[in-house]
Amino acid sequence: VEAGLVTLADIRAAAERLAGRVLRTPLLPLTTADPDRPLWLKAESLQVTGAFKLRGAYNAILPQLTEARRSGVVASSSGNHARAVAWVARELCVRAVIVMPDAAVPAKVDAVRALGAEVEIVTPDERDTRAAKLAAESGMVLVPPFDDPAIIGGQGTVGLEIVEDAVDVDVVLVPVSGGGLISGVATAIKSVKPDTRLIGVEPTLAGDAAESFASGRLVSWTPQQTYRTLADGLRTTSLGQIPWRHVHRYVDDILTVDEDEIRDAVRQIAAGCRLVAEPSGAVATAAYLHRAAQLPATGRFVAVVSGGNVAMRTYAQILATEPEASTESAF
Amino acid sequence: VEAGLVTLADIRAAAERLAGRVLRTPLLPLTTADPDRPLWLKAESLQVTGAFKLRGAYNAILPQLTEARRSGVVASSSGNHARAVAWVARELCVRAVIVMPDAAVPAKVDAVRALGAEVEIVTPDERDTRAAKLAAESGMVLVPPFDDPAIIGGQGTVGLEIVEDAVDVDVVLVPVSGGGLISGVATAIKSVKPDTRLIGVEPTLAGDAAESFASGRLVSWTPQQTYRTLADGLRTTSLGQIPWRHVHRYVDDILTVDEDEIRDAVRQIAAGCRLVAEPSGAVATAAYLHRAAQLPATGRFVAVVSGGNVAMRTYAQILATEPEASTESAF
Repeated sequence: VEAGLVTLADIRAAAERLAGRVLRTPLLPLTTADPDRPLWLKAESLQVTGAFKLRGAYNAILPQLTEARRSGVVASSSGNHARAVAWVARELCVRAVIVMPDAAVPAKVDAVRALGAEVEIVTPDERDTRAAKLAAESGMVLVPPFDDPAIIGGQGTVGLEIVEDAVDVDVVLVPVSGGGLISGVATAIKSVKPDTRLIGVEPTLAGDAAESFASGRLVSWTPQQTYRTLADGLRTTSLGQIPWRHVHRYVDDILTVDEDEIRDAVRQIAAGCRLVAEPSGAVATAAYLHRAAQLPATGRFVAVVSGGNVAMRTYAQILATEPEASTESAF
Repeated sequence: VEAGLVTLADIRAAAERLAGRVLRTPLLPLTTADPDRPLWLKAESLQVTGAFKLRGAYNAILPQLTEARRSGVVASSSGNHARAVAWVARELCVRAVIVMPDAAVPAKVDAVRALGAEVEIVTPDERDTRAAKLAAESGMVLVPPFDDPAIIGGQGTVGLEIVEDAVDVDVVLVPVSGGGLISGVATAIKSVKPDTRLIGVEPTLAGDAAESFASGRLVSWTPQQTYRTLADGLRTTSLGQIPWRHVHRYVDDILTVDEDEIRDAVRQIAAGCRLVAEPSGAVATAAYLHRAAQLPATGRFVAVVSGGNVAMRTYAQILATEPEASTESAF
């Protein structure tokens, strides 16, 4: 194993750490899938915080519990990572400060506060630096969103569960943003079953990782670019440095999907699997549905549904777009 | 045990029969629940056919597999039972004839045909007799929807999983229609943990079982009455004779919920647990949310979400009714 990369042993240690603390999410068949290439959904949307982020947060905080209990934890996020860190802090009786941008949706701020975390609102120019500054000044334990081996190790437990529960899987599709999830999943799956194809998926409108992958060098997009996508969990402007090394080592391809394809996947996940997926959580399924030409023609597929946190108004609008769709026609 | 009632041993035998054939569905916390009376949802909506009915169908057909392979199976249903029998027949390579009313929704007929079953459309006056007549004439194995010990035994595995996975449960809420599900669940739970409160729930507009329970004698309503409810899986006009005996023996109460309360539960299940529930599947959760005064003030609750088969147009309309609801405010 290349020096500095997360290992299968790290991920197995994370799995032991997380046992009983996170849900071992089910693998559910999408009953509308093509029988020649059956698809199972890894339903991380069913985690108690509605997203896989809980795994990395636990795995980062538990080994530093003494320091965390003494000084607290701090994280910067307006989304699923914020919620996960706040949840873990509450469960472990640890003080948490969540740095959130002044543009954050009030409902998201309220949700984090409802978990007992303190919220510090910052302007865009402090957004990326404030949490690290707080940690340096106060001794609080910083919980980064993705560019960290412990986070990657925690998210990797998703991959471990996939290869344990779907022993014959041929292709695994994973949403990509900062790269923590795909790095962990790819490490686990390629270590246990190296012939599995491991494919990242992101919105075309936030396709920085696909460009990095294709060009072989880590590129960044601007927020003006990435914020165009409906998939608000995938607007990170670049893969993290540590994830980039894992992606380069383990990932076979990164595909992009369009906004209408993401909406269609949200609908098909509801109709064919009865899961509420957020747009970001649906991109891997969107690639299965709409990028068949770029994927193996046969084989057993797994798509990670990474989260289910979506405003009901937005969700209802997405579902209403094709009024003929129904779980009645699920097979 | 009273003669003629399904026993815990029957349900344990069903569980062995169903192992590997049906999903052991997860118990998921509703994160928006009152902390003094936490609620877990038994997500039968995640079964491959989208409802618990698969369990009874397998348990009824498997012991008669030789006859079923020779002559086929027949069932009468326009809903989740039809789908379940068609699915089991396909999995077991058995011919299936499903008798459906001429008023059945085309999408439901198509879904059953897509599973390879033959559909026979009948007029209302033949609806309750045609399947039995076919079975008597042709030797096909009749799979009744609820008034049958094997069906009750199969549905009882839902209860067995609840007491195994939620060992400290105090109150279990179960949707009621013909009574197959609640009979099995009540038998399993009261046999393993007799101090658990077992409560049925049905729509006020189809409240025949509540009336039977309150009056102590089995009553029937008319289809004109029961068809008023949005919960199309709960329009059966009476408990079955065999379920009635189980309900009388094991169930502590039957509550009713109004249509708006059912819609609210559908929304809260989506927002707080990221599950797609059909209206019928949401009534038990509706009772938890809106009948607190008639339920224990503290304790650990489980509500069975019995199914998730709903037209997307209907579902989107239900979710859109309260635009401020969001999975973002899940806790």
